[in-house]
Amino acid sequence: MTSTSSSPDERARDGQDAQSKEDLELASAYVSDAQYNRNIFFDTSPPAVRLYLLYNRRPAQVLLYFFIVLDLSLAVFEEPAVVPLPAWAPMLAELLCLHVFALRLVHYAKVIPRDKFWKDPKNICMIAILALTLADMIIYGALHAAGCYALRWSRVLRPLLLVNVTEGRQLRRAFRSIRNALPQIFSVFLLFIFSILIFSLMALKLFSKRDLKTSDGSPYFSNYADAVFDLYVLVTTANSPDVMMPAYDASSAFAVFFIVYILVNTFIFMSVFLAVVFNNYKKYLKEEVRQLVRAKRHKMARAFAVLQEHRHQGGDGEPLVSRAIWSRLVRLVQPNISHAHTELLWSVSDDRNRGAVDKRAFVQLADLLNIQVMTLKSRPHPLGRLCPAFYRSAPSRLLRRLVRHRAFAAAYDLIIVINAVFIGLDEDKPSVGNAEWAFLALYLLEILLKLYVVEPRSFFAAHRFWNWFDTIIVVCALVATVVNAALESSGGYTSRQILDIVFILRVLRLIRVVDSVKRFRTIINTLIRIGPAILTFGQLILVVYYVFAVAGMELFKGRVKFYQDAGDPAAADCGNPLLRGSAFARLGYCKNNFNDVLSAFVLLVQLTVVNQWHVLSSGFAAVTHKAARIYFVLFHITVVIIIVKPFFWSTRWTRATCTPSWRRRSRSCGSAWRRRRRRRTTTWWTPWRRATASGPPPKQSRATNPSSCSKSPPKGIERWTRCCSACSRPTRSRRTSTSTPTLTTPTETLPIRPSAPLETFSAVKCDPPDLPPTSTPPLLALVHACRSADIDRGD
Amino acid sequence: MTSTSSSPDERARDGQDAQSKEDLELASAYVSDAQYNRNIFFDTSPPAVRLYLLYNRRPAQVLLYFFIVLDLSLAVFEEPAVVPLPAWAPMLAELLCLHVFALRLVHYAKVIPRDKFWKDPKNICMIAILALTLADMIIYGALHAAGCYALRWSRVLRPLLLVNVTEGRQLRRAFRSIRNALPQIFSVFLLFIFSILIFSLMALKLFSKRDLKTSDGSPYFSNYADAVFDLYVLVTTANSPDVMMPAYDASSAFAVFFIVYILVNTFIFMSVFLAVVFNNYKKYLKEEVRQLVRAKRHKMARAFAVLQEHRHQGGDGEPLVSRAIWSRLVRLVQPNISHAHTELLWSVSDDRNRGAVDKRAFVQLADLLNIQVMTLKSRPHPLGRLCPAFYRSAPSRLLRRLVRHRAFAAAYDLIIVINAVFIGLDEDKPSVGNAEWAFLALYLLEILLKLYVVEPRSFFAAHRFWNWFDTIIVVCALVATVVNAALESSGGYTSRQILDIVFILRVLRLIRVVDSVKRFRTIINTLIRIGPAILTFGQLILVVYYVFAVAGMELFKGRVKFYQDAGDPAAADCGNPLLRGSAFARLGYCKNNFNDVLSAFVLLVQLTVVNQWHVLSSGFAAVTHKAARIYFVLFHITVVIIIVKPFFWSTRWTRATCTPSWRRRSRSCGSAWRRRRRRRTTTWWTPWRRATASGPPPKQSRATNPSSCSKSPPKGIERWTRCCSACSRPTRSRRTSTSTPTLTTPTETLPIRPSAPLETFSAVKCDPPDLPPTSTPPLLALVHACRSADIDRGD
Repeated sequence: MTSTSSSPDERARDGQDAQSKEDLELASAYVSDAQYNRNIFFDTSPPAVRLYLLYNRRPAQVLLYFFIVLDLSLAVFEEPAVVPLPAWAPMLAELLCLHVFALRLVHYAKVIPRDKFWKDPKNICMIAILALTLADMIIYGALHAAGCYALRWSRVLRPLLLVNVTEGRQLRRAFRSIRNALPQIFSVFLLFIFSILIFSLMALKLFSKRDLKTSDGSPYFSNYADAVFDLYVLVTTANSPDVMMPAYDASSAFAVFFIVYILVNTFIFMSVFLAVVFNNYKKYLKEEVRQLVRAKRHKMARAFAVLQEHRHQGGDGEPLVSRAIWSRLVRLVQPNISHAHTELLWSVSDDRNRGAVDKRAFVQLADLLNIQVMTLKSRPHPLGRLCPAFYRSAPSRLLRRLVRHRAFAAAYDLIIVINAVFIGLDEDKPSVGNAEWAFLALYLLEILLKLYVVEPRSFFAAHRFWNWFDTIIVVCALVATVVNAALESSGGYTSRQILDIVFILRVLRLIRVVDSVKRFRTIINTLIRIGPAILTFGQLILVVYYVFAVAGMELFKGRVKFYQDAGDPAAADCGNPLLRGSAFARLGYCKNNFNDVLSAFVLLVQLTVVNQWHVLSSGFAAVTHKAARIYFVLFHITVVIIIVKPFFWSTRWTRATCTPSWRRRSRSCGSAWRRRRRRRTTTWWTPWRRATASGPPPKQSRATNPSSCSKSPPKGIERWTRCCSACSRPTRSRRTSTSTPTLTTPTETLPIRPSAPLETFSAVKCDPPDLPPTSTPPLLALVHACRSADIDRGD
Repeated sequence: MTSTSSSPDERARDGQDAQSKEDLELASAYVSDAQYNRNIFFDTSPPAVRLYLLYNRRPAQVLLYFFIVLDLSLAVFEEPAVVPLPAWAPMLAELLCLHVFALRLVHYAKVIPRDKFWKDPKNICMIAILALTLADMIIYGALHAAGCYALRWSRVLRPLLLVNVTEGRQLRRAFRSIRNALPQIFSVFLLFIFSILIFSLMALKLFSKRDLKTSDGSPYFSNYADAVFDLYVLVTTANSPDVMMPAYDASSAFAVFFIVYILVNTFIFMSVFLAVVFNNYKKYLKEEVRQLVRAKRHKMARAFAVLQEHRHQGGDGEPLVSRAIWSRLVRLVQPNISHAHTELLWSVSDDRNRGAVDKRAFVQLADLLNIQVMTLKSRPHPLGRLCPAFYRSAPSRLLRRLVRHRAFAAAYDLIIVINAVFIGLDEDKPSVGNAEWAFLALYLLEILLKLYVVEPRSFFAAHRFWNWFDTIIVVCALVATVVNAALESSGGYTSRQILDIVFILRVLRLIRVVDSVKRFRTIINTLIRIGPAILTFGQLILVVYYVFAVAGMELFKGRVKFYQDAGDPAAADCGNPLLRGSAFARLGYCKNNFNDVLSAFVLLVQLTVVNQWHVLSSGFAAVTHKAARIYFVLFHITVVIIIVKPFFWSTRWTRATCTPSWRRRSRSCGSAWRRRRRRRTTTWWTPWRRATASGPPPKQSRATNPSSCSKSPPKGIERWTRCCSACSRPTRSRRTSTSTPTLTTPTETLPIRPSAPLETFSAVKCDPPDLPPTSTPPLLALVHACRSADIDRGD
């Protein structure tokens, strides 16, 4: 603990066995950084390294994110509040949050060199956010105490915490890619605006003198600003065909004007716009991934340099790392790693049984650690242990065979379909109500039977999604139904909320049937796998939404009110006479307001969906000022055009429909899958292919495809071979994760199985020029790569 | 003329000079087929070849398309008619059309072997269409004469003519690719429908018992069929947020249901759906292009085989085609080719000056002919010829320099901006009206000055888009303004139509300012270049629209009426009491009906834009039957999801923003452009690079890029070098096509300039594995490739 960083000469004297703890800690910091793609230039002195390892501990990060969420959720309790609290309560909580953030920042400052700290924009941003928030709180507190009007403007800064904390790499990368796309977008945007202006001028000249009226009696294209707004709305198609009808009614020829307009601006310009954003994201992603792979290799090389030297003197001249040090390193990097897992990693790294790894094999460690290895233990059924005579008797064996039979699954699919019909019927009839009990019993029986056949711990393994789904749904439904029945029988009173939950659970049960159709299963599984990528996208959206929600609340709070009682005379115009007769009030949009943060979020979702956003924006413009429309147009451009559409506009979605099992039937499955499969196989083979080849690994060719997988692989890694063959036939291996009991038999000998994160790994493993594939989507791929490849370029 | 096809031995005896006309014609038929990517197995006997050449003549094709358009436009005159004619008139016209089609079919049957003709589905389709149409006309005529109700169902078949004529290759390919995508789509579609059904069931259970009402007072999620329809509409976002408001008003928690629904079905499922369609189109295109390149080479090889033999005996053993025969062939294939152009083609083909071309050089001919070579002749200005003393005087020279100066263009840009302001002002003021005359005079002066500087024929060259645009707009505006003024002064009467035209022309003039900003110009030019690809897409849409329009007219004609006089009591409910109080009538959609083919088309465009399609469909469902919604849902799936969205969902649009001039400023322009440029350059170099290399052409490398363009190329093709350098700097060469007079000077010595069709060529020229680039869009690229690569697989 007391020894400071020693020079190479000194260390060389210590000899091989006296590998100092400090060096191991430094190496583990490098490896851990490489594994999670952190790119922090920490101080390499032992105390700083130990602080740095503490900084990266999971509990510290969880705590940080807890306080960020707390800070963000304060908007619920602040004015305008969903749950009103005295003003001091949220401010006290915020003060606590600020303390935590400041502490974390101080910790970070201790870890990295002083000059690096002050050059990093994210640290400056953090300090600015903290300072500004504190200043705002003091001013607000003072003004509030004095009874003056005060604005909590610093709330807009809160979501920026998510971006500027050290762990917000992915989010920073997403924002960087958006910022980089902006100059490209701007040029097209100008032309697009020019086109709208020209068309608006034409519309003004053509329609303003004709005294036309819209369907709600307002003048039609009467002034230029309104014309521009109406035609901008038409680009989003939200007011089609209403904006066209008065002109079209006047003369059929005017339809040509609007059709040309829609073709040019909605179809062509919007396509160009999205294509520009999309391509910029894609290009940016490629550069990031390239840098990331380089940084990772660099870090692993440094870790190797720290550990190698001792070995160097006793070895054959080639720098090596011994098994003992390697194992200590792995255990330091991943403390909770199992012995079998370490053994497996070692057998892959040291494929020549030399008892040591060279640099090439060592560098792969970061990627190897990222592979999630799942160990399927073949445990005997507890019943078989407790009362073997009964469990192995003929009727029991018959029952187990029965449950494993395909007909059992088919029978339950039929039951689900019948249940769907019963759900559709009126549940007030007593027969339908009783049938519900029968169905519940049947579902419970199914789970119990499966548990009778399958060992419970493997039935409830982490990756058995559908087993968990079934059990939770059925148990919840049972509880809710019993509670409901108890309430009903006790006083004839039924809680609407509980009934709603019962209904939702009943319907959710039906989803299970998807799992029985193989095609559906593969689509769903791929969609689930994309899920985590959507998470970072969700953070991005949250940041933007939060900023717009807070701004919207300050601008529009209390202008539009919602009255629960529809009979209230004020309900007809949302409590604001300015809205009388407007489309906003007529369509009953009163609850779409900015009166609290949750309402604001729902409203922003509606604006993201785009439809009727002009009604919403005109409503808020009516109660404030016409300039309020700018807020809504800005939101549309920022969220819909720049973020949401390019994200969902990605070809990666196709993978959901491209599976080998399917390809076998119809040979028309796209090349996307084939490319994917090849890459995935490469990943699995590279560990020893790279190690055995003396030069750089040869380019991936057909010959190294799964077909060669069953041929004798290097000694000691038969398990990997099995694993490889399993991952080269994903459908088969995926099958084991379904709830069909015939496939989850404990007698299956597949010891290791690649799981979803493998993909993540394969995406980073390949050489930069191959990566990402040209058909990769924009933000989605970015986010996807970010998950696995988490470098921090430091701006 | 009388000599029949002779055996090779006989022909060999004829000697070199007596190359028979039949062989040349046969070869020209092959070359022409290769050039236009026709894939017709015509009979090779001399009379059949001559008939075949006649069949492919342009006038014959133009006539055919004229009659197809006539046949399609008959819908305007038939019941329900825009322009009512007696029933016999359109029927007579249709009979005439049928005759023409039958004649064309007989001609085709004479050209190709009997068995090939009957095996080709498109011929069978044509015969079936003709027979069915005739049968329908007879039945309709008889029933009509008897006064019974008769249906002209065969009109649905008319657009299929566009698909099944020999020239409809591109359209057939587009339909083939859609058909091939269907099985893939189907699986995702089923899951999507399943998802909607599950959510509908949940909505029904949650909302039906709560006695909620929508904003127009109708029950909310009261039955399953309506729930499914409402939620399908929500997928298209057309009824957002209205469908959510009653539930949201009842409880804020229900917002979660709708947000999850939109996320799953609108964002995720629609994305998967589009990605599947897109990827299938892309994959299919690759295969088609590969086949097409193979077929083209095969045909050119056959043409060479026909011509080579005579040369063979006198030559050095290598089969060759002599220059004389080559020239005759080229003139036969393209009768109106200029001498300079032939010389150029020859100098590229025979780069070793052997006086003959070998097979490799010969095969390139089809592609060489596809390059549009533009000859810029350096003609003296006619004024310089007529009165040289005046034209070359100092003031005249000063004037010319003035007009060519950059400030001249800038001054006119300023004038345009000022004009825009004046247009925005109220034109009833006399000062504004007079200013308009001044602007007209200024614009006329600009054109005259430019004509004074630039030789008129090069000013009005075919590719000078903006010159043509300016002149036409200004002359039309002059005529319209004069007519308008004459009408006004004669009786104070102003024709609204003429005024409209004057306004439109005035505003259109402003577009010219786009041409002054270089970034805008490049975007616009690329968009214009994409234009032709949109043409085939337009045909595809026309076919689908026509079928739906005719079907819609039969289903819904007369149900909804539009009254020009809004005061008419029937106008409030569109002449149908069933619509009283409906959203359809309230929003004034009465003119959106199927009462004639033009209204039907406008309505279908509105349905393509998607917004409010549920109001339209509910309106038509109200006046007929709820099942009418199927028609609208079917239209949405067919047109929006399968055709329009994937077409506009293509990354090719980016090229509009990726130009080298731009790249120089910001280095962030995507790789799309670089790839493009490299390919384009390849195209220009390949002619002699292929010819000089003895083996297959080496892979394109950086070394062959435009930088090497100025190095001494093979003798005799300096002009190609210039051309190459011109095309490697497209901005410069494009600049010459702008209206800025400084750049259109007749003294420029650039003799040949690649034009837009070059791209088309380059797209086909490259080797199949390179083609199409992975980032190529679906239908758009398909259509684009179709334009140039026009093979006919015969189904």
